[in-house]
Amino acid sequence: MSAEETDERRARVVLSLISEPGDPRFTDLAHEVGGVRLLQAIRTDPERHDLLMSAAARLRELDVDAELARAERCGARFVIPGDGEWPSQLDDLAAVAPLNERGGVPIGLWVRGPLRLDTLAGSVAIVGARSATSYGNEVAADIAAEIGLAGVPVVSGAAYGIDYAAHRGALSADAPTVAVLACGPDRAYPVAHRRLLEHLATHHAVVSDAPPGAAPTRIRFLSRNRLIAALARGTVVVEAAARSGSLTTMNWAERLSRITMGVPGPVTSAASVGVHQAMRHGASIVTSGADVLELVGAAGANLTEDPRAPRTARDRLSVHDRQVLDAVPVTLGAPADSIAKVAGLGILSVQPALTRLRRGGLVERDPHGWRLTEAARESGGHGATSHVARPAVPTIEG
Amino acid sequence: MSAEETDERRARVVLSLISEPGDPRFTDLAHEVGGVRLLQAIRTDPERHDLLMSAAARLRELDVDAELARAERCGARFVIPGDGEWPSQLDDLAAVAPLNERGGVPIGLWVRGPLRLDTLAGSVAIVGARSATSYGNEVAADIAAEIGLAGVPVVSGAAYGIDYAAHRGALSADAPTVAVLACGPDRAYPVAHRRLLEHLATHHAVVSDAPPGAAPTRIRFLSRNRLIAALARGTVVVEAAARSGSLTTMNWAERLSRITMGVPGPVTSAASVGVHQAMRHGASIVTSGADVLELVGAAGANLTEDPRAPRTARDRLSVHDRQVLDAVPVTLGAPADSIAKVAGLGILSVQPALTRLRRGGLVERDPHGWRLTEAARESGGHGATSHVARPAVPTIEG
Repeated sequence: MSAEETDERRARVVLSLISEPGDPRFTDLAHEVGGVRLLQAIRTDPERHDLLMSAAARLRELDVDAELARAERCGARFVIPGDGEWPSQLDDLAAVAPLNERGGVPIGLWVRGPLRLDTLAGSVAIVGARSATSYGNEVAADIAAEIGLAGVPVVSGAAYGIDYAAHRGALSADAPTVAVLACGPDRAYPVAHRRLLEHLATHHAVVSDAPPGAAPTRIRFLSRNRLIAALARGTVVVEAAARSGSLTTMNWAERLSRITMGVPGPVTSAASVGVHQAMRHGASIVTSGADVLELVGAAGANLTEDPRAPRTARDRLSVHDRQVLDAVPVTLGAPADSIAKVAGLGILSVQPALTRLRRGGLVERDPHGWRLTEAARESGGHGATSHVARPAVPTIEG
Repeated sequence: MSAEETDERRARVVLSLISEPGDPRFTDLAHEVGGVRLLQAIRTDPERHDLLMSAAARLRELDVDAELARAERCGARFVIPGDGEWPSQLDDLAAVAPLNERGGVPIGLWVRGPLRLDTLAGSVAIVGARSATSYGNEVAADIAAEIGLAGVPVVSGAAYGIDYAAHRGALSADAPTVAVLACGPDRAYPVAHRRLLEHLATHHAVVSDAPPGAAPTRIRFLSRNRLIAALARGTVVVEAAARSGSLTTMNWAERLSRITMGVPGPVTSAASVGVHQAMRHGASIVTSGADVLELVGAAGANLTEDPRAPRTARDRLSVHDRQVLDAVPVTLGAPADSIAKVAGLGILSVQPALTRLRRGGLVERDPHGWRLTEAARESGGHGATSHVARPAVPTIEG
């Protein structure tokens, strides 16, 4: 029996090297029977000949020690289920059906960087379009910075657009931020983000279920997206065209019972079409980091208040007194009974209201009766312009 | 016994003239005991002295015949519960608690214009900010035109901004559109909309629960908002600042179990803050007239499809064949076993895939093996750039 057949970690290294990331035929069995037994089955079980056929080409040229040396050179460690650092929220993937023929708990994660993956249970994924607008980039960076300041780690990819903006925002808040890649953790894709990725690998974390050196193929992005959704407590999509890859991340998040969130944009913007679609399918609207914190935070820990316009003296009035105030003329005063008629109220209730309004500095007496004070005229933009039998009291809409 | 004490219609005319629109002390009793008995109670019942106190000033100067002549001059009719034209959906107001001290089934509606109110059961209200942006105005007009073309009447106010845009859109589609006013139906508020209102009163309808001549006071807008929400099957808010009056309309719509809808906008736009707030509180996202029709239409009658990007030859491939295609180099061909290794697939499944891809015009042979065709290179923007032992296959994110 070779070492790789008895050592679970080494068996999973081999499995990671010979199988496609997220291939559910491998991930499901590894989760159910463990890496050692799966590897044995691939090599010897005629019923699992399909797995051997898939892995044969890679198995033939496999040099585990060379690959481990390569991982060491780039500073990558291999984290597997059972490790203290293992982010156990990923185990939720075992219960969710594959999507695009990809799924399951990863066989292991290749990780570069000092950030421990078991600190990501409360993290938030921020995903979206590569071809984001400046609006989307700004909002993504703002949200990342705001949740980062609250101590919530950010998870994203490493693409142009929203991914980049999310990391930028988190870094501006000096907050932990993690890039999950479709290629090996030592590769820079896109190349223009090499410096960002090196920074993350030095100070935060770069994660992949593909081994060092692996190329970023399309199918691996689909596999990767499930990891982003599963690592985070909730996923925010900032901008996404129809059929964007970000929507598969949202789909994973939803099926994993994570919190799904979308940032609205103009309905005339193609870059927001996919987000609005996600919102129609149940994603919650978020307009700021505070909204995100409220949704992902411990219940009640981060309650946002609905934005309110400043309260004016008028706002503090009862509806009754406002009704009286509305009936008070602007320039030429009117007697209380005339005001009562305009207001549709009894004189006995209008008289004390006028007294209250005078105390509040909103009405004053003139030789003809009651009129608005200058302060009331300026603050309200309302008030009667004439005071005839049938009232003509233009006012602003409330 | 005078005529107004036996004739329900005349009793309600009197009640409309002596009470504030939507004052629930009047609307609730009128709904429960009828106009004739309510009017008797106001005049004679010491227990309803509060109502007499409220109405006393107006009762003293009341000249019913003069007011009816005034209504006739402006072409206004008075529609009351039980009339064939009565929009019976307003009766739902009886079951909903007042808001801002306004509520209840209106005592009657003053109506100008040929449109019958009993045709509005399937209508949609479009409301929003007076200080709308050009984005909001455009979207409101587009939605109104789109639902108008589908035969759905539009209900709105007559304010600047979204109200005006909604009527403009409906008129552009030659669709029925109704303005519900806070003032008498003969008054133009704002004055700049006199022509619009005259057009509606001539070809469509202008409606109010305030009698001809009544001024647009702030409290009457709050009363009016409930009528807009109650007349329509659903209400769309297009733009609204925090604490906008449109949100009281949404509140009424929600409490009346109507469909509430919001048009998203940039989170950086103050004019969309109130809409996003409404969406957080349960309003459905709508981005077009089609979305609105789907929500308010008979179930299944107007199902919209999620927007989709055009399908490419690549989209039609199985995940397996796409995985093979991703592993095919761009310029210099590679043998099938090399492609199999890159793809992480067995040679026995890669060979037939390459055949299928050649039939599809996506790959071709060269002296070294298989490579992408020009068509595949152009359509995908993907494919391997090199083909070494450890694959280096940049591809676009899927």
